Formats: sequence, C-alpha cells, structure tokens
Amino acid sequence: MLRDAVVDIDEQGRISHCGPREQAPEIDPGTAVLDCAGMLLPGLVNAHAHSPMTLLRGMGGDMPLLRWLREVVWPAESKLGPEDIRAGMRLGSLEMLRSGVTTSSEMYFSGESVAEAVLEVGSRAVIAPAVIATPDLGELGGWRRMVEDISRWIDTDGLRFGPGERIELAYGPHSAYTLPPEALRVIGEQARERGALVHTHVAETADEDTEQRRSYGSVPKLLAELGVLDGRVLAAHGVHLDEEDIRVLAESGAGVAHCPGSNAKLASGTARLTELLEAGVPVGLGTDGPSSNDDLDLWEEIQLAGMFARLSTGDATALGSAAALLAATRGGARALHRDDIGALESGRWADVVHVDTDNPAFVCGVDTTDERILSNLVWAAGAECVRDVWVAGESVLRNGEPTGVERAEVQEAARSAAKRIEG
Amino acid sequence: MLRDAVVDIDEQGRISHCGPREQAPEIDPGTAVLDCAGMLLPGLVNAHAHSPMTLLRGMGGDMPLLRWLREVVWPAESKLGPEDIRAGMRLGSLEMLRSGVTTSSEMYFSGESVAEAVLEVGSRAVIAPAVIATPDLGELGGWRRMVEDISRWIDTDGLRFGPGERIELAYGPHSAYTLPPEALRVIGEQARERGALVHTHVAETADEDTEQRRSYGSVPKLLAELGVLDGRVLAAHGVHLDEEDIRVLAESGAGVAHCPGSNAKLASGTARLTELLEAGVPVGLGTDGPSSNDDLDLWEEIQLAGMFARLSTGDATALGSAAALLAATRGGARALHRDDIGALESGRWADVVHVDTDNPAFVCGVDTTDERILSNLVWAAGAECVRDVWVAGESVLRNGEPTGVERAEVQEAARSAAKRIEG
Repeated sequence: MLRDAVVDIDEQGRISHCGPREQAPEIDPGTAVLDCAGMLLPGLVNAHAHSPMTLLRGMGGDMPLLRWLREVVWPAESKLGPEDIRAGMRLGSLEMLRSGVTTSSEMYFSGESVAEAVLEVGSRAVIAPAVIATPDLGELGGWRRMVEDISRWIDTDGLRFGPGERIELAYGPHSAYTLPPEALRVIGEQARERGALVHTHVAETADEDTEQRRSYGSVPKLLAELGVLDGRVLAAHGVHLDEEDIRVLAESGAGVAHCPGSNAKLASGTARLTELLEAGVPVGLGTDGPSSNDDLDLWEEIQLAGMFARLSTGDATALGSAAALLAATRGGARALHRDDIGALESGRWADVVHVDTDNPAFVCGVDTTDERILSNLVWAAGAECVRDVWVAGESVLRNGEPTGVERAEVQEAARSAAKRIEG
Repeated sequence: MLRDAVVDIDEQGRISHCGPREQAPEIDPGTAVLDCAGMLLPGLVNAHAHSPMTLLRGMGGDMPLLRWLREVVWPAESKLGPEDIRAGMRLGSLEMLRSGVTTSSEMYFSGESVAEAVLEVGSRAVIAPAVIATPDLGELGGWRRMVEDISRWIDTDGLRFGPGERIELAYGPHSAYTLPPEALRVIGEQARERGALVHTHVAETADEDTEQRRSYGSVPKLLAELGVLDGRVLAAHGVHLDEEDIRVLAESGAGVAHCPGSNAKLASGTARLTELLEAGVPVGLGTDGPSSNDDLDLWEEIQLAGMFARLSTGDATALGSAAALLAATRGGARALHRDDIGALESGRWADVVHVDTDNPAFVCGVDTTDERILSNLVWAAGAECVRDVWVAGESVLRNGEPTGVERAEVQEAARSAAKRIEG
C-alpha cells in the first residue's frame, strides 16, 4: 500500500521506480507516470478461478458440489462453444478489473478463447486449459489429446506472450478423481520440460478426498510419487489436507490457492490457512468459479480468509490486515511461482490499482496511521472503492469503466450466450 | 423481491398497494408512486449496531474483544461528546442507506444525538440508549439515572415519533456482565410498562458467557427469572446459547440479532442459526459496531449467515438465498417485534430499495428465473448495486447520494470528530 507516492514505469510496462513522492527521480517527459494523491496498491491476484462460468452464475444455486456438477454444470458446459467461453471470460475479466484483480489463474476449456478475452479486456491471466476424463463429459479417453494440445500451444507461442506478457500458459489437470494417475504423470513430465505450471484441484470436498486417500494415500502424496511436485504446482482448495500433506507440499514448494468463500458456500469446509503459512507453503487467495461463489470479488476472500483463520484458531489477532492483503497480492504471485507480479517493486510489471478513499470506509482513518488505513482497506472498503487500474503500465480501467471494451457490449454478449445455454 | 412492479404509497408514507404492474390500481394524480423497471426490495433491517462507532473504525484493529474494549474503545469513548456522536451516527446512517439498510437497531450513548442524526439523514432507527455500569467507564452507580432518563424520554416524546415514525425508543442494558441483576429487573419492568423493547448483549464471547453461567445458570435464564423476557426483548449475538437457552428464548418470543461478521472477526464463534430458526426464534442480522466489523454493510452479513450455516451443518442447501434475504428484512423486523417494516406489503411503511441490475452480477440471470436472480442478488450483488432508497415513501437516496444531507459535509464532520478523539 502506498500513499502519496509515485510509480514510474518503463517502456515495457515494468515499474522502474516506486516510492514516496519526494524521493522520486526527475520525471522524463513522455514517460508514463502514475501519480495519485489517493492510495495505490499492486493489482490483486486471483489464484484460482473458472471465470467463463459467469454464464452459469446462479444456476442451481443451493446444491452440494458433486450433484451440482453432475446435474447442472456439466450438462450446461457441454453446450458451450468457444464464442460463449470468450463472452463469459470477457465478462469475468471486466468484473475482476472493476474489483482490482489484474491477474487471474484460470482453469477452463477453450484456452484460446480465454486468452483472446483476456487480451481484449487488457487484464492478465495464467491460463490452464482443463484436462479431464469423466463419463459425464463423454471424454474418457481424450486426456492425451488435451495434453498434446497444451504442449503444442506452448511450443508454438511460448510459455508467456502478448503485450506485457499478459498470458502465461499452464496445464490444468482437473483433479485426481477425474483423471487416471498416468495422465497426471504425463502432464507433470511435459510441464517440467517446459517450465510450465500445473494447476489442479486438491482435497476440495471430504467425499472425494476420502476416496482418494483410500486409493493413493493422499493426493499430495500421489503427486509427489508421480513426480508432478518436482515442477511448478498450484493446488487449488486444499481443504482436507492433513499435517503430512502440508509437509509434502511445503517441501516441494507447491503453492495453494485458498478459496474460503466457495468452500463455505458449498459446505466443503475450510483450509488450514495458518498451518499452511506456518509450514512455509506459498498461499494465494482464489474466488473459484463465479457460479460457486458467486462472484469474482477477491476482497470478499481477503475478509473471509481473516475471519476463518480467527474462528478456527480462536485468536482475534490471527491473520492481521497486512497478512490478509499480502495473501491476495504477493502470496498469489508466489503460489503461481511468479516474481514479476503481486507487488509494487522495481522490475515487476506495473499492474497497479488506484483506490478511492473518498467514502465512508476511509473517512475517519485516512489521515491517521498506516495500520489504521490498512485495516479500513481490508475490513471496511472493498471492490466498490477501486477506481482505476493499470496492467503493464497501460490504463485498462478508468473511473470504474474499462478502456479497451464497451461494458454494455460485453454484458450483452454474455447475456445472449447465457440465454442460449439455459434455453 | 419485486420485478416490474409498482408500489403505491399513501399520504402517511405507508404502502397502499404493492404488486405486478398490470394489477396496479389507477394512479391517483399527485400520489407518490415508485415505478421501477429494475428490482425493488424492502429496506434492510440492521438488527444490532453501534453506528456512531464509525468514528473509531480501524482503531486497534486486530485485538481480542475484552482487551480491545478496555484498552482502545472505552478510553476513546470517554472522550466522545454529543456532537461527536451525532457526527458518527450521521456517517453511519448515510453508509447504511447507501447499502439499502433503512432501519437500524442502535445501542449507544447520547440517544438524543443519535435520534437527531437519524432524522437528519432520513433513515429509521430503534434507539436503545446504553445503560452500563463498569469501573472502566466510571459510571458504577449511574445506571438508575440512565434508566430514568430513558423512561422520561419515552413518557415525554412517546415510544415512536418523527416523520413516518422514524424513531422508536428502547432500553439498552449493555449486558449481564456490566450490570447488576437489579438493573436488569428494573429495566425489564419499566420497559414492559411502556411496551418498549429491551436490547441487550447475550452470550457474545466464551469468556464472559462461562462466567455468567457460573453466576446465573445462563443469561437467558437470568432474564427469564427477572421477568425481562415477559416483555419485548432483542438478544444481540447469542453465540454461546445451548439448547435450553434456545428453548427459553423461543418460548418467550425474544428475538436474536445474529452478527456473523463481528463474531468471526473477533474470534468469538458463530451462533447456531439453523437451530434458532428451527426452534422458532425470530432472528435478524446485525453488523454490530463499525469498529468490530468494520462496516455497516448488511449484504456481507447475509452471505456470511449462509456460509456459516452451511459450514456448521455440512449441508450446502442450508439457508438458501430466499431464507438469507428474509433474515435481513422480515426476520429483522420480527426480532425487533415490529410488523410495520421489513416487507413490501400494504399497511407497512414504504421503506423501499431500488437495486440496479445493470452490472456483471445480474447480467446472466436477470432475464431468467426468480430463483436465479435471487441467488444473483444474495451471492453476487451487494451494497454497490443499491441505487435509490425511500423511507416512509420519502426519497432519501437518489443514484447513490443522500437527498437530505451533503455527503462531503457529513464525511468532513465525522473526520474532524475522529481526529480529535485520536489526537
């Protein structure tokens, strides 16, 4: 968090200087400079999302996870074409920018459509095309082709591409309960060869977790055994990890995407955040898909992470404001094994959020201590205070509205796609 | 929730008709009519708040309840004069209107200042001047005078007064751990004589609760024994109620204000919402004070109530969207023993909220089923979608800005007061 600060940006869109106004170097005319009297933050990192699911938001609202997947989500998703996914992702990216999320870690189908949408809206994403083999989706034997498609894409376009390296490609094996171990092994191998991230669901619900423990000991142990943990891994959810699992993840350097809102709404439970952090596991925060949350607002997850940490430890000082905000920024970057986003530091991409402090949340704290204004930011403010956003130094949100797309058009396209799927 | 509906309002500010546009009676020229193509909701009811504490928001953010009260809150409050409390309450009322809360149930000092602020901003409140006897506040013997002051005020101005009966007076005995039983008995008696509400903290933290159980069995049992439960009672928090306590409350008709956000942030625990509802206890939702939440946004409590109900039962269908929204409207009214607010029905006060559906939260649900749009409202939308608010038929918020006061002036007055207290 910076107050009364200057962020200087180089021609590539990286931060070249960042600090108090009075220490700023003389400004080179023609250079992009963000100079806000208000508050500047690094763009938030949503570590686990299926953002095109904006199209399904509110469908089958109040159902348990596995029934909801089988009866509502998977049938609806089988009707989604690439254009629909582009429409859903554009809405998701727009929604995230409006709440200050500049990077999202996506697992979904039609990776090309997701990438196209992200570049159009101007945000940043780590895109892990989903690999899944379940009879519900009629793709039992198809996982090999899906993996090959990802590898070919990386070999063609590179691991990172787009202006300001906005897109990073990754592998998205859905989970150990929807894929055979052989698929996980192959994916781990191909990802390691390319330095790519493996983004997968781990121990989300008690039901699937119990089954997997019976088969494999536990999913972290299976991933270790298959060599997957030797590479870059992001484990989403991690609700039902035991101490041994946490140790395995910590030793390998794997990241965890903590999704407190989705896990609570679906009655899945709550990940052991404080124990994960104590063990040294890099933890980011994720919204999960907007049809199980039901939005992409990471500020809610920041508050929930704090609340759940306090309830589970009985300690009102657990996960203070600074630690909660860090999980949504630097922590998310670390969980994605990235050191070029998630903080306002020289050399990182200039993904910057301007927070408006002219509202009740900040009225009585803004002129006082950093500790108090940070508390206001985390506990009283939220998405509605985000005014302007830059990604790689480029203005992508100005006074709450996107600069690269028309909000009305984005909403209308998503609405049409959603109607077609439901109809 | 009403879509494409008409609300007709009589000259007193009560709803005279409410329903689908095509069934509306012919409109009498000169009558106030709310006719919105978007979504209309009853104004939300914040069942437990100490709203003037906006002035203290963010002070001593991450501390356990009792230490925070003794080291931060009570010393700061001892510096508050009536003008400060008016400034803090004006900011609180404004903040609540902006999130669609039309009625708040307040427990605080300087009841006159609180009432003045509520009338100025144009919202509605049930004001329970605090009665407390603790050495920390230097008022050990003063409870009798505080009680007399409330009784005299009711006897002078009436139980309800102001335009649209915006103010209801009540008794606010802080708790059984800051007052002797004799004080509770006297308050219960005087409240019953006047038909007034008794608003008190019950079983908020394990520490105080254990102590009280040792002394009295339990606070609900003590209140029953002293006759307090024979009148109108609102028990705030109720985190540590056992089955017997719940039965006692249910039998007496006492209401409970469930404050999931504050209870989580302060690591106090979570009230047994589903059991309270099953037992027939009228339950509303409360934010608690904005320095232990840290805002007055009831939409967050709606979501938290749902999440905690699901986590504690392990059932993803617990507290569906409709039930969660009902707790914040009709449930809050019932917990306050009121049948003239909390719903869009003929005869009730026209406290109405207009929700803007032109945003990502509603894009894909608004043209579909009522169930889906209700899910969007509860789980994806929030305070930022509230555009217009009427109280007793009078427009008090228009396009997000208050009509009766200047937001900048309200904020500036609160800022000055806050600075003085901290300085």
